[in-house]
Amino acid sequence: MERVAVGLLGLGTVGAGVAKLLTERSDLIARRSGRVIDLKHAVVRDLAKKRSLTFDSRKLSDNPRLVVDDPEIKVVIETMGGIEPTLGLVMDSLANGKDVVTANKALLAEHGCEIFAQARKYGRAVAFEASVGGGIPIIQALEVGLAANRVTSLAAIVNGTCNYILSKMTQEGLPYSLALKQAQELGFAEADPTLDVDGTDTAHKLAILAQLSFGATVTTKQIPREGIDRLQPADITYAGELGYVVKLLALAKSAGEGLELRVAPTLVKRGTPLAEVRGPYNAVRVVGDAVGDTLFYGRGAGEFPTASAVVGDVIDVVVGRAALTFKALNLWSTDAPTIQLASPDAVRSRYYLRFSIADRPGVLATLAKALGGHGISIASVIQHEPADGSDGHVPLVIMTHHAIEASLKSALAEIDALDVVRRPSVCLGVED
Amino acid sequence: MERVAVGLLGLGTVGAGVAKLLTERSDLIARRSGRVIDLKHAVVRDLAKKRSLTFDSRKLSDNPRLVVDDPEIKVVIETMGGIEPTLGLVMDSLANGKDVVTANKALLAEHGCEIFAQARKYGRAVAFEASVGGGIPIIQALEVGLAANRVTSLAAIVNGTCNYILSKMTQEGLPYSLALKQAQELGFAEADPTLDVDGTDTAHKLAILAQLSFGATVTTKQIPREGIDRLQPADITYAGELGYVVKLLALAKSAGEGLELRVAPTLVKRGTPLAEVRGPYNAVRVVGDAVGDTLFYGRGAGEFPTASAVVGDVIDVVVGRAALTFKALNLWSTDAPTIQLASPDAVRSRYYLRFSIADRPGVLATLAKALGGHGISIASVIQHEPADGSDGHVPLVIMTHHAIEASLKSALAEIDALDVVRRPSVCLGVED
Repeated sequence: MERVAVGLLGLGTVGAGVAKLLTERSDLIARRSGRVIDLKHAVVRDLAKKRSLTFDSRKLSDNPRLVVDDPEIKVVIETMGGIEPTLGLVMDSLANGKDVVTANKALLAEHGCEIFAQARKYGRAVAFEASVGGGIPIIQALEVGLAANRVTSLAAIVNGTCNYILSKMTQEGLPYSLALKQAQELGFAEADPTLDVDGTDTAHKLAILAQLSFGATVTTKQIPREGIDRLQPADITYAGELGYVVKLLALAKSAGEGLELRVAPTLVKRGTPLAEVRGPYNAVRVVGDAVGDTLFYGRGAGEFPTASAVVGDVIDVVVGRAALTFKALNLWSTDAPTIQLASPDAVRSRYYLRFSIADRPGVLATLAKALGGHGISIASVIQHEPADGSDGHVPLVIMTHHAIEASLKSALAEIDALDVVRRPSVCLGVED
Repeated sequence: MERVAVGLLGLGTVGAGVAKLLTERSDLIARRSGRVIDLKHAVVRDLAKKRSLTFDSRKLSDNPRLVVDDPEIKVVIETMGGIEPTLGLVMDSLANGKDVVTANKALLAEHGCEIFAQARKYGRAVAFEASVGGGIPIIQALEVGLAANRVTSLAAIVNGTCNYILSKMTQEGLPYSLALKQAQELGFAEADPTLDVDGTDTAHKLAILAQLSFGATVTTKQIPREGIDRLQPADITYAGELGYVVKLLALAKSAGEGLELRVAPTLVKRGTPLAEVRGPYNAVRVVGDAVGDTLFYGRGAGEFPTASAVVGDVIDVVVGRAALTFKALNLWSTDAPTIQLASPDAVRSRYYLRFSIADRPGVLATLAKALGGHGISIASVIQHEPADGSDGHVPLVIMTHHAIEASLKSALAEIDALDVVRRPSVCLGVED
């Protein structure tokens, strides 16, 4: 059987999982790929660091050039993350005639064009199943399984940390800070969770999904995004009363005005598959014009789920399929037609609004009139009797019918200027 | 751009969808496959039949040899269904050097070995994404995306007719016969629904999933199966009280005693993704030893969802990927090691039991003792006060902890022989 030498950059959580799968189940992998895959070298930043695996020290190095410049190594597996020095190592690996398997969503979201151009120049392939949705084979589904479809919309839960925190807040009524603390203690959140909870990580993944589904080359900066870090437990509670759960969604929708993209905490109707995605799980809902709606669900992070996707890619590369897919799809290409992005103001959605209003006669009428004046129609209202110890303000929750974001913003500006309303008002989108 | 001629056998619901996609979106397909796909001929049984599409009559024929024996045609798309004369046409197409794309689950389940041997003999590929789960790319996920995994278990809702009927029975409390009638009126069930409702269709699909996931070559006859046609509304109601919904599941599980396979109405815990699969939707839950649990959800039938999978396969074939996958996987091979099937008696599961017992003191104790005597432990019990007009018998529902099927059968035989119990008792498996 043919032997294929591969090199591994990074031996953190995902890298260690990849090394374990490649060595511990070499028989299975050989049977499915028709090749013996030989992990020739792994490169780490700090040789002294304690690791969860025993790795032959002769194969371990802190010099990435041992992998990048080794002519025997045919596939470079990049699980080190980050942009620098990763980008340079990936570019050099491609220039040296190696295929690249990467789990690095930030790298693709920010430098997809350069990396894919380099791969095309040197006739190599880049595989990146692990970059979105951990072990869920969503990249492959969009590239191959749904190839007969035009994707019309996509809604994705692709950050396990946020979904875990939101599930905790929903199920146990915890405030954000406490739910985050529990997530950190259990290893579902990093010590510095900023890029997860502020929506940046989700936006990276949305940039990749938008490329695959709509051929749209966007940088993270072009995606309006809001995280979960300012979400109030009250809104999760009211959403529940209305029959919804709050999820951090990556949304992409092909509309008349162009492609709508956004990352935001969003109300999702209970009883739909997306609403039932709990804890650290991920899911991607894809609507295609032929297939209708589909959903792909699984563990979005972690050592073995992510390594499952990486090793699946390695098999795909050595079998030769990845090269065919890479060539057929022409992703992140400068030749591709530019996809027009819709202005965020043009987005049409239903909205959940929460105001803190003075407990006085006529206030509800004033707000309803302000909304109506901007063409926004009310679907339902919750106003409870004031709680004991209320400071003269009570919460008013309004669910709207479909409205244009620009109209909504004008209405909210008008309402927030009223002296019977205590700012800031809360506004969340709704996915039915 | 290279042209590839393809022929279509069958122009029923799925075939018509395929013809429409191939002609109406030839640009998209050409872009994604790098070839112009030319539907050269379509073959129908009855030329006089009215169809939902306008099809160039010069390309339409009732002679399948026009497709099977045309040297210009490179890919034969089989959407005619059935075993005869389909099997012969598929075998001849392969012998004539054509790749085959098929949506025919019965054909693969019963004749997979012959067809795949023929394809190997002539160096061709067979692609069959549409045979299970309609538009859901589940075959590809098992073949490629999850290739780094050993699948440990699989639970699938793969018959839209049954799921539609069960959803109606659950949501509206309809009896089976009325729910079936509504499904027929809406086109979700055939005039003769036997193969759907008795579990045969689900068993065909399970045979295919078992081949892909476990390398097990099984015929439908080897799969114990039970349909939904004898399911009582009462059991759906009691399942609901216990927090479960009833789904017709295809189950496969790798256990110590061998591979467990079965098709049966099964209680699924509410709030899990599988329980929320409603109406005509399908879903396949796959647990892999690296990836953990995953779920693939979408429309399991219908013109365009199924055609989406067929055309996806056509693209996969002409790009050349399907040939690589076909060769790497060696499915339905006589060289493959035989997979031991577990005896149904050895299956370990939780069970839902419903007895109709005489409304007399001591009967619950008698039944509990009989179960305990066979090592079956009770998890929960429902016994309501007798309804007005009761005939002296009341329903008793028992949910067990995990038990061996053989013990359960002995206990049930003992209980059914008691004169305080009116037969037959109901027994359904539980998936948590």
